[in-house]
Amino acid sequence: MRVSVDICVVPMGVGASVSAEIAQCVEILQRHGLHPRSHPFGTAVEGEWDAVFQAIRACHEALHAAGVPRLMTTLKVGTRVDKPQSLDDKMRALADRLTPLPP
Amino acid sequence: MRVSVDICVVPMGVGASVSAEIAQCVEILQRHGLHPRSHPFGTAVEGEWDAVFQAIRACHEALHAAGVPRLMTTLKVGTRVDKPQSLDDKMRALADRLTPLPP
Amino acid sequence: MRVSVDICVVPMGVGASVSAEIAQCVEILQRHGLHPRSHPFGTAVEGEWDAVFQAIRACHEALHAAGVPRLMTTLKVGTRVDKPQSLDDKMRALADRLTPLPP
Amino acid sequence: MRVSVDICVVPMGVGASVSAEIAQCVEILQRHGLHPRSHPFGTAVEGEWDAVFQAIRACHEALHAAGVPRLMTTLKVGTRVDKPQSLDDKMRALADRLTPLPP
Repeated sequence: MRVSVDICVVPMGVGASVSAEIAQCVEILQRHGLHPRSHPFGTAVEGEWDAVFQAIRACHEALHAAGVPRLMTTLKVGTRVDKPQSLDDKMRALADRLTPLPP
Repeated sequence: MRVSVDICVVPMGVGASVSAEIAQCVEILQRHGLHPRSHPFGTAVEGEWDAVFQAIRACHEALHAAGVPRLMTTLKVGTRVDKPQSLDDKMRALADRLTPLPP
Repeated sequence: MRVSVDICVVPMGVGASVSAEIAQCVEILQRHGLHPRSHPFGTAVEGEWDAVFQAIRACHEALHAAGVPRLMTTLKVGTRVDKPQSLDDKMRALADRLTPLPP
Repeated sequence: MRVSVDICVVPMGVGASVSAEIAQCVEILQRHGLHPRSHPFGTAVEGEWDAVFQAIRACHEALHAAGVPRLMTTLKVGTRVDKPQSLDDKMRALADRLTPLPP
């Protein structure tokens, strides 16, 4: 089953700045072939269900191995069977609807 | 890896009331041996990483098979390696901190 | 506008255990008259839009004043206009659907 | 209090495709002066607490007025007092950490 997932990993019990941990996750997702796209609150990926959740598991394992004692990750998991819809399709559908701003 | 997960399944493209779909998910989680605990915004489970995400996948598959065209599920995924912490432990830690309300 | 909200406050830049901070939020929500109900991954409240978000703001302010450098709070915000639905109604609708477990 | 918020509005009880409703929210956020930035799973904004939550309330009110019977919105609400951090700062901190991909 095809799935698109938004991943927001929050390391706990470490400092207030966590960009190093987030970057480590993005690189793990890349190594899993998932073409991650980051935004200010997370990283979006798409792929087969098992591959995606194995990659997210690898992120948790790597951060714990690197010394993070606790993780609270929020995921948004989207599946649909009425039509295929990639992450690009989602962005295009929204862009097509937005009224261009006045110059 | 042990994980505790909060699951909030939102069926899209169906009616505004979705308790039938939520109940179907809770029963699938039960059949997977996960002892789900529901609250007004979702259902908490705990278990091994792969078992939990296979059960959530089964929920998506079952709801699509039952005719739901699209699902947007929000998950909170907690892991910690500093100490074991069950869902019961989490509730107890909070209860121990709360000042009893005056009678 | 009436709203029901699930609140999951994650303090960052402090220790891995955060039950003290969560308890402080629950007490603030109580003092705002919101009758909070906690579960393993958050706290559900219901009320008028502005009152609820003022109370959540008070939680952020209090935790920062107590020394938490960063907060990442996840909220689920539900509104519906087809029928009134309290948190109790949500739980009852689910319970009515669940097949009793065999003894 | 300054806040950055990621907004994911899920209209329920309508069709499976909701880009029209999402576009309507983005335009409301723009009219509130919030410079929304959309990604495949939501829209990020930043501003003063009350202004941001009034704008999100306006989104709920407008979609209900347009006929959406139920909304389930997921918000990630970030505040920090150790240093100012804009959405741009968040993206820059991550980019600075990522190892460039091999050509």
